Amino acid sequence: MTNHAQVQNGVLGTKVIAQIGILVNDIESVSQAYADFFGVEKPQWSWTDPMDVAQTEFEGAPSEARSKLAFFDMGSLQLELIEPDQHPSTWRNYLNEHGEGPHHIAFVIEGMKEKVALMEARNMPLVQKGEYTGGRYAYMDTFKDLKILIELLENDKK
Amino acid sequence: MTNHAQVQNGVLGTKVIAQIGILVNDIESVSQAYADFFGVEKPQWSWTDPMDVAQTEFEGAPSEARSKLAFFDMGSLQLELIEPDQHPSTWRNYLNEHGEGPHHIAFVIEGMKEKVALMEARNMPLVQKGEYTGGRYAYMDTFKDLKILIELLENDKK
Repeated sequence: MTNHAQVQNGVLGTKVIAQIGILVNDIESVSQAYADFFGVEKPQWSWTDPMDVAQTEFEGAPSEARSKLAFFDMGSLQLELIEPDQHPSTWRNYLNEHGEGPHHIAFVIEGMKEKVALMEARNMPLVQKGEYTGGRYAYMDTFKDLKILIELLENDKK
Repeated sequence: MTNHAQVQNGVLGTKVIAQIGILVNDIESVSQAYADFFGVEKPQWSWTDPMDVAQTEFEGAPSEARSKLAFFDMGSLQLELIEPDQHPSTWRNYLNEHGEGPHHIAFVIEGMKEKVALMEARNMPLVQKGEYTGGRYAYMDTFKDLKILIELLENDKK
């Protein structure tokens, strides 16, 4: 049942991991630990945009969930620390179920709607999506097959 | 209590993530899923070396634990699938406690003994170590601080 043209390029059109996302309870203390360990300045965390800007949807419904995010450059990819608020989200639910630790790997793709449709056709459902300044994201539930979640990132053309 | 010279270079002397390691129950099916999804050939998995070659130590004692490993090139880093056998190891114990999913990020370092000592002085204990053809590895328990385990990889000079 495999589409060979699709498989030759891969579903995403890329294999380059752009981010690894780690869920934490206290972004201040974990950011400080990374900064101390890797010898870099502690980055300032920032909130994801509020609901009216981010247009966040979780499990198909609008959600006011937000997270604090902090980023570290680790070679060619970013390590992203995520401290979610208490509203239901993939971040909050995964943290409650699994505890702190890695949550996803992210890929920069083109054609968000098409990629989401391709993945949903492979039984990898869209879990959460939203907008950020300059682009948009989608968390896809690839855990059953790939044993980690995948985040799609689409950046607007400049 | 921070050594500033150490912090400026970071404890490891590198921030480049070389591998992401993911624990799985069935390396055959998960390897096939990655190959299908990313449009690459399914790599052949291989066993880690037996105890007499690998000189595996887990929690300070010799261990006959082994794992099946499969590697995928994902941009500048490798994604490593790990199916442990039933002997106690960081792989088996973490899989039993957390279920399938991401286990560690790896860094290629120089001076294994020195790095392990530096990390143990920071209350990041050595969990497991062993030899592989061309080098050696050490898993360090950085979970309390960094919310993920770190593996050190040291390759012999050629």
